[in-house]
Amino acid sequence: MADGTELAAVTERVRERIDPAPDERDALQEAVRELIAATESALDDIDVEGEVIHVGSTARGTWVSGDRDIDIFVSFPESLPREDLERLGLQVGNAVLPEGQEEYAEHPYVSGEFDGFAVDLVPCYDVDSPRAIRSSVDRTPFHNAYLEERIDDETAGDVRLLKQFLSGIGIYGSDLRTRGFSGYLVELLVLEYGTFEAVLEAVAEWHPPVRLDPEGHGEKEFDDSLVFIDPTDPARNVAAVVSETSVARFVHHARELLEDPTVSRFFPEPPNPLSADAVVEHVERRGTTPIAVLFEPPDVVDDQLYPQLRRSLDGLTRGLEHRGFSVLRAATWAEERAVLLVELERATLPDVERHEGPPVYVSEHAENFTREYADTDVYGPFIDGDRYVVEREREVADAVTFVAEKLHEVALGAQVEDALRDGYTVYSGAEIGALAEEFGRDLADYFDPAP
Amino acid sequence: MADGTELAAVTERVRERIDPAPDERDALQEAVRELIAATESALDDIDVEGEVIHVGSTARGTWVSGDRDIDIFVSFPESLPREDLERLGLQVGNAVLPEGQEEYAEHPYVSGEFDGFAVDLVPCYDVDSPRAIRSSVDRTPFHNAYLEERIDDETAGDVRLLKQFLSGIGIYGSDLRTRGFSGYLVELLVLEYGTFEAVLEAVAEWHPPVRLDPEGHGEKEFDDSLVFIDPTDPARNVAAVVSETSVARFVHHARELLEDPTVSRFFPEPPNPLSADAVVEHVERRGTTPIAVLFEPPDVVDDQLYPQLRRSLDGLTRGLEHRGFSVLRAATWAEERAVLLVELERATLPDVERHEGPPVYVSEHAENFTREYADTDVYGPFIDGDRYVVEREREVADAVTFVAEKLHEVALGAQVEDALRDGYTVYSGAEIGALAEEFGRDLADYFDPAP
Repeated sequence: MADGTELAAVTERVRERIDPAPDERDALQEAVRELIAATESALDDIDVEGEVIHVGSTARGTWVSGDRDIDIFVSFPESLPREDLERLGLQVGNAVLPEGQEEYAEHPYVSGEFDGFAVDLVPCYDVDSPRAIRSSVDRTPFHNAYLEERIDDETAGDVRLLKQFLSGIGIYGSDLRTRGFSGYLVELLVLEYGTFEAVLEAVAEWHPPVRLDPEGHGEKEFDDSLVFIDPTDPARNVAAVVSETSVARFVHHARELLEDPTVSRFFPEPPNPLSADAVVEHVERRGTTPIAVLFEPPDVVDDQLYPQLRRSLDGLTRGLEHRGFSVLRAATWAEERAVLLVELERATLPDVERHEGPPVYVSEHAENFTREYADTDVYGPFIDGDRYVVEREREVADAVTFVAEKLHEVALGAQVEDALRDGYTVYSGAEIGALAEEFGRDLADYFDPAP
Repeated sequence: MADGTELAAVTERVRERIDPAPDERDALQEAVRELIAATESALDDIDVEGEVIHVGSTARGTWVSGDRDIDIFVSFPESLPREDLERLGLQVGNAVLPEGQEEYAEHPYVSGEFDGFAVDLVPCYDVDSPRAIRSSVDRTPFHNAYLEERIDDETAGDVRLLKQFLSGIGIYGSDLRTRGFSGYLVELLVLEYGTFEAVLEAVAEWHPPVRLDPEGHGEKEFDDSLVFIDPTDPARNVAAVVSETSVARFVHHARELLEDPTVSRFFPEPPNPLSADAVVEHVERRGTTPIAVLFEPPDVVDDQLYPQLRRSLDGLTRGLEHRGFSVLRAATWAEERAVLLVELERATLPDVERHEGPPVYVSEHAENFTREYADTDVYGPFIDGDRYVVEREREVADAVTFVAEKLHEVALGAQVEDALRDGYTVYSGAEIGALAEEFGRDLADYFDPAP
């Protein structure tokens, strides 16, 4: 293992690139000040009580240079009916960000630009405790209060390092495409272990399931491989969205960085998109049969799209395996269009399949089974061990035909299923070279997989 | 279910064909009388004490017409040294059957013909109880004494029916090719249940494991699906050799015979041998890839050959499955030559295979694994769930080449392995049509399998 000074030298150079310069900080502070003033004035105009709070990484000084969203929350009293909160929230938002867009996550808010910064202006309820929240945004002010009290400048620098590191290895972000680590979780991890380096050292030794609970107030068991009990809510796992693979990748890369610290581990080059020819070369070298389903994805946000794509890919994989095919690997990607890719060991199977009947000794079932197959042209029934067996015609002997004609027979995400009903194209074998134009980068990841 | 009178009418007609006629009985009795006299006189000549005993189905009147071996045992006192017993046993045997052959099972005996009957003349020890036997032949006199006391003419008729029935469905005989029911076991089953029909009715309701112990003296547990504690030896399962499939077939056919009694169920026509063209047609219709290994079998008795053939077939099947191939069905036959046949779903696999490494969290193993594959041209290592995975070149992608070149890598029966070392021929796909000339009947069973 490299000694600490080597890592320190690396992190120093990384921080030169990710710490916001004084100019950026000043501009941000100025923008926040103006935004708060504008929001308070808009509140005065509608004559409703409300507290304006600056939250998020820019509030705590933990943003990575350039990645600087300003989140302004307006906290309304609980007595305000929900429809009023939504209406007034949008009204205030539109007043402050006249060019902004109304967005609808769990509830409506306004998103826009202000002095070159991306701004979200979000109404929420001022509840007594995170247990009393009425939507998930109500939790944010509690997180913010908890962190603001604890994160000093030094800690903030370590948070930025960890964010950048996780970003480099592709697991920063709690969106459902990434299923990685949220900004809040990164901040909590640095607080838990003390420094960036201490986080790496601890994570390198993780043996999931890992459970962290700095307030010692956790109330529930969770199945997740990483559990971080929310210090502001004993019933919540902050890491619920982090996938098992994301945890494993964090452990692997923590070990690697400690072993061999380099700046490039924080800023890896994205892979070159694969050309169609290179894709075909891989298919030939592997001797498999990939089958790709290409379609127009449903018009939903990524956090809705990706779970549905994964569910559809699982359904397709299990549907093929259930019919006797072996899936070596599978992947799904969405760019302009979406693709479900399954890579089969073999795309065709024999025309007969073994079908096991009941045990010979369960006479009623036995009679039904032998009667069922009596005048058919199956092979058998014969007896193997204690069971009846027939070899009957296989319903699906060709996976490509099955995917082309009977994709609806497998379990698909609801809106993906609708989208597929509007049509899709099937590519198999070397034909998947045609995907390189749109999915070249995804294909590069697929055919040169890394930890 | 048919009523009893229908079955009775059928068994009556069967008995007309299988009961020995008075002529046959008289001739047999005469031959036995002469054999016993000749054996006693030979014993007198060598001046050693010994009892001459007529044993087996002809002693108990349970033989099926035409299937009439005479077994004469000479029981010597235990004080006689083993080498003397063997020497004198052969001497007596050769005196009685001067044209006979010396045979060597567990110990030597003489086998020959006498007045048109096949005769075995076997020396054994006169031990106090079956627990004290020195070789398995010493047990026979006890079996004989037990049965002679209990089997009357009527019971003997039922025994013949059951023997013929089991013979018709291919599970009569405790040899290791058949793995079915011995004559002794058939007699015990009829004694146990009372009549042939009662045996059928009981067997039709069997739910293995079935344990029968008429003397209520069994001492041990057995794993076999059928356990019949030897009434002369509490530690022995008479049915140990009966395979699970033989038990299941008995149950199935008992049910069928009760349901629809016909004479032809006792005398089924053997299947017509399959022609080469018909074999090829089946291979094409099934869409599989059969691979056959044809060779000169080792020069050993069937009871040694068949277990070895099965062990070799198991080894080949598991060897192929271990390398990723799916075996739909497998069989082994010996005629002049022997064959191991495995029927594969597909004979080729992709050029890469998935290989799972250690969990990411076991850091020492993890480092070894990532180091091992660092500078190779595998795909990966990448992380899936909590494990490292590589996709590496598959060692065996073509089953036919593997069988042709690397058959010795799978577990084979010892003498079969030697025989294969002397050479073998591999047929695959439609080429197995070439086996029809020698194995046409076996192939007919294989491609028209019945319970």
